[in-house]
Amino acid sequence: MKIAVDAMGGDNAPQAIVEGIMMAVKEYQDIEFILYGKEEAIRKYLTDETNITIVHTDEKIMSEDDPVRAVRRKKNASMVLAAQAVKDKKADALFSAGNTGALLTAGLLIIGRIKGIDRPGLLVTLPVIGNENETFNLMDVGANADTKPENINQYATLGSYYAQFVRGVKNPKVGLLNNGTEENKGNDVTKRAYQLLANNTDINFVGNVEARELLSGIADVVVTDGYTGNAVLKTIEGTALSMMKLIKNAVYENGVKAKLGGLLLKDSFSSMKDVLDYSKHGGAVLFGVKAPVIKTHGSTEKEAVYYTIRQIHEMLDSHVIDDLVHHFEEKEASAILKK
Amino acid sequence: MKIAVDAMGGDNAPQAIVEGIMMAVKEYQDIEFILYGKEEAIRKYLTDETNITIVHTDEKIMSEDDPVRAVRRKKNASMVLAAQAVKDKKADALFSAGNTGALLTAGLLIIGRIKGIDRPGLLVTLPVIGNENETFNLMDVGANADTKPENINQYATLGSYYAQFVRGVKNPKVGLLNNGTEENKGNDVTKRAYQLLANNTDINFVGNVEARELLSGIADVVVTDGYTGNAVLKTIEGTALSMMKLIKNAVYENGVKAKLGGLLLKDSFSSMKDVLDYSKHGGAVLFGVKAPVIKTHGSTEKEAVYYTIRQIHEMLDSHVIDDLVHHFEEKEASAILKK
Repeated sequence: MKIAVDAMGGDNAPQAIVEGIMMAVKEYQDIEFILYGKEEAIRKYLTDETNITIVHTDEKIMSEDDPVRAVRRKKNASMVLAAQAVKDKKADALFSAGNTGALLTAGLLIIGRIKGIDRPGLLVTLPVIGNENETFNLMDVGANADTKPENINQYATLGSYYAQFVRGVKNPKVGLLNNGTEENKGNDVTKRAYQLLANNTDINFVGNVEARELLSGIADVVVTDGYTGNAVLKTIEGTALSMMKLIKNAVYENGVKAKLGGLLLKDSFSSMKDVLDYSKHGGAVLFGVKAPVIKTHGSTEKEAVYYTIRQIHEMLDSHVIDDLVHHFEEKEASAILKK
Repeated sequence: MKIAVDAMGGDNAPQAIVEGIMMAVKEYQDIEFILYGKEEAIRKYLTDETNITIVHTDEKIMSEDDPVRAVRRKKNASMVLAAQAVKDKKADALFSAGNTGALLTAGLLIIGRIKGIDRPGLLVTLPVIGNENETFNLMDVGANADTKPENINQYATLGSYYAQFVRGVKNPKVGLLNNGTEENKGNDVTKRAYQLLANNTDINFVGNVEARELLSGIADVVVTDGYTGNAVLKTIEGTALSMMKLIKNAVYENGVKAKLGGLLLKDSFSSMKDVLDYSKHGGAVLFGVKAPVIKTHGSTEKEAVYYTIRQIHEMLDSHVIDDLVHHFEEKEASAILKK
C-alpha cells in the first residue's frame, strides 16, 4: 500500500511529520510513503530511506489561506500534489496535518465522493472514560456546517462500517445525538434524521443519545450534524483541559501536603492524561471520499503522526472503503431494479 | 417581594424544597414565600413559619407528564397554581424543580412573554475554571430546539442585561458560539445571527467564540441556539463527571502510594468539586417572560434551593426584568416614531 504524505502541513512540519513517518516505516514494511514537500527540509529528518520517495515542491498551503481558492490555485502545493497522486491511483491514501478546510476541499474536489454519499463528513475516534480498551466514533465533527437528515443517515452507515472494519466492533450500536432520549425529541433536522435512522437496515440503531453520556460509551457510533459535532468535540477538549488545569492548581496551590500528594499521584495522573489523549486512535477521517483522507491536529507531534499512519494502515488493510463503494453501488442497483 | 414556590416539583420534593426555603427565610427577611403543595407533607419540614404561606393542593405535575397537556389540564397542580399567582400579581417570581417542559409551558402560557421577545430562552450561569470569582452566562440551553437568528440576537440583549444587573458586570462581553472565530464561519443560522449581533447597539459584541474556550472565560455572555446550547451544557457536565471518575480511579486503582496521595489531596479535590458545582450560582432562568421563572435540577438538594432563592432575590432586587420591559417598550416606540 502507498500513502501520499503532505510533509509540509501543520505547525511542526516537516520535522514532526517526517519523524512520525520514520517511526511508522520501521513498523509497517508493507507501506510505501511518498512525501510531498521541500526535499532539502525533509531530508534533514530522514534517517531511513527504505520505502520512501520524495517528490519535491516549493509550494504549500498556509493555515490562513482560503481553502477553496488555495486548492484551486496552488496546483503545486504539497497537499494538492498528494491528493492528485491518490486521484491518479499512484497512492492509496492521503495524510496531512495542514489547513483543514483545504484538506476537505482537496478530498472532495480532487479525490471525489463515493457514489451515493452526498456529503462526506469528519469522523473521530474518542476514548470511553473508565474503560481504557473502549472507544467510540463521532461523526460529523465539522466537515459540513449545514447538514440535512439524509446526510446524518449516511454518516450512520459510514460510521458503522468504520466501527466494524477498522475497530472490529460487531454489530456496532449507532446513536443519534439529541437533546433528550425520547423519539420525539430534537430540532427539525434530528427529528427527521431519527425516522431515517430507524428505517436504515444497514445499521443497529439504538435511538437518541444525550451528550452527557457520550464519554461513558453509550454507543459505538454517534452521529450528528457537523455544527453540533464540532461544538461537542471542542467542548470535550476544553472541559478536559480546564479540569487538568484544576488538578494542577489543586496540587500546586494548596501547600506542601497537596504537593506531596501530587508527587505520589504523578504516575496515576500521567496515565490519566494518556486516557484523554485521543490522538493514539488516529486522526480525523474525511469519510465518504474514495480513499482514506486523514487529518491530524496542526500542532501534531511525531507520535500522533505514527498513530495516524497505523490508522490508515488499518483502513487500507480492512478494505473498508472498497466495501462501502460496493455497498452503495448495490444499493443503487437494487433501487433501479425495484422501479 | 413574594416568591411562589412549587413545593412538589423534583425528586426530593417537598423535603429538599422546604428545607432550602427554611435556609433562605432566615437570610432574606424581605422575602415572603407562598408554598404550593400538600400542606401536611410541607409542614413536616417547616421549622419556621415566618413569612411562609401554604396553599394546599393535592394535584401535581409528574416528570413523565406531557408538558403542554399537563399545564392545560392540571389546573390545580402546584406548579400551575404558583404560575397563576405570578400572573395575578400575588407573587413576583416562580420557582420549581419540577418537569422542565411544563415549567417552560407555564412560563410562556400563564405568565407570558415580555413584549418584543419572540422566544424566551434558558439562561445558566457557569463557572470560569481557574478563576473562582468569575462566571459566564450561556443562553439558550434548551428552551427552543429550533432557533432563528433573531432569537439569538434577543438572547444577547437578555443575557447582557442579566450579566449587568444580576452579576454586576460592566459592559459585558457577548460572544456568539460558533465553529470558528472568523466572521464568515458557521452554519446558516449563526452566519445571519452574527450580522444581527454586530448591529445590535444594546450589547458589547466580541464576535464568534469557540466551545473550547468557554470555561476559560472568553466572554461574559455566550449566546447560541437551544439545541447546541443544550448539547454543550450536557457535554460540559458529562466530561467533568467522567474526569472526576478518572481521578477517583487514579487514586483508588493504583496501589497504596496513590491512595496516600489521594488522602493528602482530599481537601484540594473537594474544593475542585466545589468549583465545578454551578448550582451555587442559581438555577436555569426562563428569561424573556414577565417575571423571574427559575428551574433547578430535579435531583436538587436544599443547598441548591437556597442558592436559587438568593438568585431570585438578586433578580427582583435589581429590577432587571422591569428594565428589560421598558427597554423593549422604548425600542418599539422609537421604531414606530421612525416610520
